[in-house]
Amino acid sequence: MGESPSTALHTDRYELTMLDAALRDGTAERRCVFELFGRRLSGGRRFGVVAGTGRLLGLIRDFRFGHEELRWLRDEKVVDAATLDYLEEYRFTGSITGYREGELYFPGSPILTVEGTFAEAVVLETLALSVLNHDSAVATAAARMSVAAGDRPLAEMGSRRAGEASAIAAARAAYIAGFAATSNLEAGRRWGIPTMGTAAHAWTLLHDTEEKAFRSQVEALGTGTTLLVDTYDTRAGVETAIRVAGTGLGGVRIDSGDLPIVAGEVRAQLDELGATQTRITVTSDLDEYAIAALAASPVDSYGVGTSVVTGSGTPTAGMVYKLVARQDDAGGWVGVAKASAEKGSKGGRKAAFRTLDRGTATSELIVVSDGFEAVDTAASHPDARALQVLLVTDGEPDAAFEGPAGVQAAREHHAYAREELPVRALALSKSDPAIPTVYREADERSAGQ
Amino acid sequence: MGESPSTALHTDRYELTMLDAALRDGTAERRCVFELFGRRLSGGRRFGVVAGTGRLLGLIRDFRFGHEELRWLRDEKVVDAATLDYLEEYRFTGSITGYREGELYFPGSPILTVEGTFAEAVVLETLALSVLNHDSAVATAAARMSVAAGDRPLAEMGSRRAGEASAIAAARAAYIAGFAATSNLEAGRRWGIPTMGTAAHAWTLLHDTEEKAFRSQVEALGTGTTLLVDTYDTRAGVETAIRVAGTGLGGVRIDSGDLPIVAGEVRAQLDELGATQTRITVTSDLDEYAIAALAASPVDSYGVGTSVVTGSGTPTAGMVYKLVARQDDAGGWVGVAKASAEKGSKGGRKAAFRTLDRGTATSELIVVSDGFEAVDTAASHPDARALQVLLVTDGEPDAAFEGPAGVQAAREHHAYAREELPVRALALSKSDPAIPTVYREADERSAGQ
Repeated sequence: MGESPSTALHTDRYELTMLDAALRDGTAERRCVFELFGRRLSGGRRFGVVAGTGRLLGLIRDFRFGHEELRWLRDEKVVDAATLDYLEEYRFTGSITGYREGELYFPGSPILTVEGTFAEAVVLETLALSVLNHDSAVATAAARMSVAAGDRPLAEMGSRRAGEASAIAAARAAYIAGFAATSNLEAGRRWGIPTMGTAAHAWTLLHDTEEKAFRSQVEALGTGTTLLVDTYDTRAGVETAIRVAGTGLGGVRIDSGDLPIVAGEVRAQLDELGATQTRITVTSDLDEYAIAALAASPVDSYGVGTSVVTGSGTPTAGMVYKLVARQDDAGGWVGVAKASAEKGSKGGRKAAFRTLDRGTATSELIVVSDGFEAVDTAASHPDARALQVLLVTDGEPDAAFEGPAGVQAAREHHAYAREELPVRALALSKSDPAIPTVYREADERSAGQ
Repeated sequence: MGESPSTALHTDRYELTMLDAALRDGTAERRCVFELFGRRLSGGRRFGVVAGTGRLLGLIRDFRFGHEELRWLRDEKVVDAATLDYLEEYRFTGSITGYREGELYFPGSPILTVEGTFAEAVVLETLALSVLNHDSAVATAAARMSVAAGDRPLAEMGSRRAGEASAIAAARAAYIAGFAATSNLEAGRRWGIPTMGTAAHAWTLLHDTEEKAFRSQVEALGTGTTLLVDTYDTRAGVETAIRVAGTGLGGVRIDSGDLPIVAGEVRAQLDELGATQTRITVTSDLDEYAIAALAASPVDSYGVGTSVVTGSGTPTAGMVYKLVARQDDAGGWVGVAKASAEKGSKGGRKAAFRTLDRGTATSELIVVSDGFEAVDTAASHPDARALQVLLVTDGEPDAAFEGPAGVQAAREHHAYAREELPVRALALSKSDPAIPTVYREADERSAGQ
């Protein structure tokens, strides 16, 4: 288990009590297919961005029940002795296919397909959903901000507005979806994300004068640093900044006021002072709409906090983890689904493709198989891109998707996938998904094409 | 440092670069007072609930820079060698006073007051805000749900809709604010919160028939268990449930449909079948408004997921951490504040009281001291409740506020403090804070009373 803390109790109680009952009645060993998907795109988003997959793979490695976890489960009588024995040996040995991290998703997209016994697959539900729901919500909001910002770089600075562990995951998700850097040092260390920072108002207030604060910062960090100019009076702050650092000052940060107006005034003042290369970064309560509204203003970069780490109004992606197929006693496969108008799911295993017309996405094609046999994804849709890859084989995660290298790959894949979107997908207003989800039965597809 | 992972890099980069510059210019050792507070109650809340304090104390214990953290900071050239030496020895040695966990707060309430050198106090900003902003947002939403639910118990079941670590913190915050239990096992183990659970739709779908699934669950968990009855057809599900478990069945869970109608139908059916003691729990996308709308329906308990862990529309409390006083070179104290219409703060150290009229809160009285001398909280407001306690003394957290015992104390304190609220505070609609925040200068207060 190495030094990583166990993630095995990041789990809803009913997962273990269902396991307990299934071990008694013999269904625990039934082969099952669970699917993780979103029924809709929350918040009227036109597309979703998958994030968290690489994190989840590492957390599944650490999903082992150690002595402390087992003792607590025994003391609390959560499960019986036979179940404790099972959990002591627990290790996921099944397979997981799914969308690459950074990929786009739409309603019904089979983002993860988890195959294994009921026992080993059911207990991953809470952890898988926690990771994917949080990280995808942040990545989806971040992608919208990235679209709004165009070529101007975005920095994620919202750690203080998210739980301390989620903050690191949020920095990672935002980077995958197009942000250039984060203020969070642990995200830099753990995931290889570039880190950045300027200074706080406390820095200026600590010193007897703004000039002393600026002078000290420039001496420590060089003239390439970014000075925060709005602690007292922005016009005086800019004048002091250039007087102290010279016209080679790297940047100034504005954190208050009516940003389109203030940015214009500061740009004019900097140019008058000869600091034509000094960059302006703005950071006050920005979201994708505020960023879009600054498109015509002389702003060079954006720092985004609260809105990106909280998913800009949609803090969770609302994905679910549902049993879609299982074996019966005879060993045959049965597609299963809850019957409900608004909360139903579609039984059967799915293969997913993004159909394209001259490089532009036209639909999310989901081929449903009643049985368990793998749908041949390669042959029959040469005009479409197959969306699923093998993430875990016989319990072993593919290391290529993990760690900093996995993050870089996800960021690149996201940029690639976003290029396929039709232009209408890039508008910020609430709408239906940018492309329709089309279901097809496996037989029909085989027969028809 | 024990086995806890370091929390020292859960920190924005600029905290360390400000430290770096302050060590060079000599201001690092200036004594400072930082204050953590909310400028307003986000989301039109009528009161806020402080949560996270006990967690933060443990995280401050683990705020040490180990070899890995230091090596990364050196390799990335975040700070210079002198700063690395400082960080290697870093331990917070100052003091923290603040509101008890579970206490109510209002705009400007000095929730934490951190006193120490600039160096040791500034680097705690990100961590302190991450914890308090997240946990207080959840607790505030949970308290509103608890008000709406009245005497009916609430269970927190939202782990899957929050980052995997934030989920544990959310379960803890919800419990402090009045929830009775959580589905999250790690929250049970770590914080001593009662855990609960029923079964998922996958449980029914795993079995060949609903009856087999119910029979197995009752055999494993006893007739006191709660059966999920809406997988196929709720009326048939209820009939099967009572046939299998008998009229002594503990409960049924309904997770879909128009809940006021369905709950009434299920209650009537249960009563007809003689299962008059079988409880009904409902769990479908509930928030405080949906809970209030079910007040007249025959529901016995509520399971709440997404809305509570995401703060029911307000996922972060929006608190800030501001330098409010510092020493000058002569050793005198200076109150400091940023000048800004909408983002300004009030300089000076604060003492906070809740004034009461026959047991009902009438104002949040904040006595401001320009200097550093402690305001005498005990003497002059016998009709008010002093709100601040000493949380950390000379770097040592008060263990009474930590661990499961701290959670219980916070839950009890919350119930106590909520009893003081005027009735208008308990309405769910958006409004101004239920009581006004009143500032008074320390001198004026001493003189006037």
